[in-house]
Amino acid sequence: MAAPNRNSKENTCVLVTGAAGFIGSHLVDRLLDRGCYVIGVDNLSLGKMSHLEGARKNRNFKFVEEDLLNTEQCLSKVRQHLGDTGYTISAVWHLAANSDIMAGVANPDVDLNNTFLTTYRTLAMMKALGIGQILFASSSAIYGDHRQALREDSGPLFPISNYGAMKLASEGIISAAVESYLESAWIFRFPNVVGGRATHGVIYDFVKRLTENPHELRVLGDGTQQKPYLHVHELIDAMLFAFEHSRDRLNCFNIGQVKTSTNVRYIAEHVVRCCAPSAKVVYGTGAKGWVGDVPRFEFSIDKIRALGWSARQTSDQAIDQAIAEIVRDFEIRT
Amino acid sequence: MAAPNRNSKENTCVLVTGAAGFIGSHLVDRLLDRGCYVIGVDNLSLGKMSHLEGARKNRNFKFVEEDLLNTEQCLSKVRQHLGDTGYTISAVWHLAANSDIMAGVANPDVDLNNTFLTTYRTLAMMKALGIGQILFASSSAIYGDHRQALREDSGPLFPISNYGAMKLASEGIISAAVESYLESAWIFRFPNVVGGRATHGVIYDFVKRLTENPHELRVLGDGTQQKPYLHVHELIDAMLFAFEHSRDRLNCFNIGQVKTSTNVRYIAEHVVRCCAPSAKVVYGTGAKGWVGDVPRFEFSIDKIRALGWSARQTSDQAIDQAIAEIVRDFEIRT
Repeated sequence: MAAPNRNSKENTCVLVTGAAGFIGSHLVDRLLDRGCYVIGVDNLSLGKMSHLEGARKNRNFKFVEEDLLNTEQCLSKVRQHLGDTGYTISAVWHLAANSDIMAGVANPDVDLNNTFLTTYRTLAMMKALGIGQILFASSSAIYGDHRQALREDSGPLFPISNYGAMKLASEGIISAAVESYLESAWIFRFPNVVGGRATHGVIYDFVKRLTENPHELRVLGDGTQQKPYLHVHELIDAMLFAFEHSRDRLNCFNIGQVKTSTNVRYIAEHVVRCCAPSAKVVYGTGAKGWVGDVPRFEFSIDKIRALGWSARQTSDQAIDQAIAEIVRDFEIRT
Repeated sequence: MAAPNRNSKENTCVLVTGAAGFIGSHLVDRLLDRGCYVIGVDNLSLGKMSHLEGARKNRNFKFVEEDLLNTEQCLSKVRQHLGDTGYTISAVWHLAANSDIMAGVANPDVDLNNTFLTTYRTLAMMKALGIGQILFASSSAIYGDHRQALREDSGPLFPISNYGAMKLASEGIISAAVESYLESAWIFRFPNVVGGRATHGVIYDFVKRLTENPHELRVLGDGTQQKPYLHVHELIDAMLFAFEHSRDRLNCFNIGQVKTSTNVRYIAEHVVRCCAPSAKVVYGTGAKGWVGDVPRFEFSIDKIRALGWSARQTSDQAIDQAIAEIVRDFEIRT
């Protein structure tokens, strides 16, 4: 590998929170492929051990089943693993969060605990272990319902979901920690990410419903909701690239692809073709699906492009690949 | 009173959190002067009963001594007061927060609990009581260390103190609540506010230290730190004005005065003149006083000026008035 790789330094290892989750487990696989020693933490509330099947065969991977909110237990288990190896942890990839935005709309405690307090406690753990670098999975949801293109320095930040609010709170507490005791932080604002192992999201939802009822697919909203999607593999490419090529104390990047987006109608019809070609698609009315849903937005990714990264796939291509992978996930399960 | 007054509607009352605090107690006095029925909540951790001496003589004032984090108890005590009167609460002025930024630098739990979770629980209480309007005391600290003028829509928002982070988190959760169940919200980003009853802050600190040692005043930093100050009475004018004249669902205003600011050297020397004229002032080095302190910033208040409000005092005048009041507070106490 030609590029300098911060993750492959001798005697260092990285910790991944939310390691058994959708994005977390793909990241673990990638870091192991690069030769990193990886400690993964997950409480398995949304994540699945099956996502780590490959990783667990690798002797450079250790898994800690613990809730980050049980910080002391978590810390002691991580210390135990470290003690055995002589490694020190150089960076934390903090991906643990609620990923079910609607659950957080119904009950704000979900995002308070799982999206914000997980970050708060991860920072406490990092302080205790003397870990200087955090890479954080933030979200486009922090921006709220803007009309203009969303740049990293856009304001105001008035999120319209508890999920977005608690991602914003996490960014804030990380930013304060950088001022106080952290070496550096990378904040990645994720777009809509799709791919195999998804535990939520529009594709997962459609496939699941068609598995239950192959005759009809009811869609919330009129199907015109349009969003840019990125495949999880490209997301991880982007994060690793930014980690290796940006060196401010506080680095913040929107991740996504530029000008393409996909509407719900395209997704519904494509999923139907793959799963249940004879199913009838029934649309609702209105452009908004649910409270807290941002119907359309445009993400500026000029900053990460200027750094040298851009996505290879269009939004539709990402969706196509993800549908194939998620349909396969369901076939394996049943 | 010529202007329409939302607070004086028959059978309505307002709830003030942090009612015994510095700003809260001044607000309570003002609302009572206007003929409002006011329920004040405070846990008296930073607030003082003596600040409510005047208010408690008014039969339109009820005091609830309770921690907002004991939400159920708080709710039941508030309901008890309401039951007696037949009033319904039209709005909550949410001012309860940690006001000691340095305490939050030393221990992040202080701002997690007292600055953010108080907001989170206040919203839960509002939902339970069906209260539609919140007026929230936010802070210029949410902006972090910007170099350009800070407008309400400035970004990015990377606060450098836990206090700023937890005020930002509060704004976010209020913004999400407006999308979901609140009628409307007013977010006021406070500048440095001074005046009698202060429980913290540079003037309080200097007066206190000179009371203990009238021979010397040691100043953190070189005394060149320059900030715009506003007197608490003007702050309350501004909030009431904005409440009465802005009607978006989510209203956000910087409050302050435009182009004047005061440096620490001016404050130190003026306090010395008032308290202990023979004391020697000893300055430290560097422009920053402590971790999380934003040494210089410029606040844009174009938005509230365009609405029709502007401060009458300069920063120095506000400081002069506040020093006189705080010195008097100390004289009464001793």
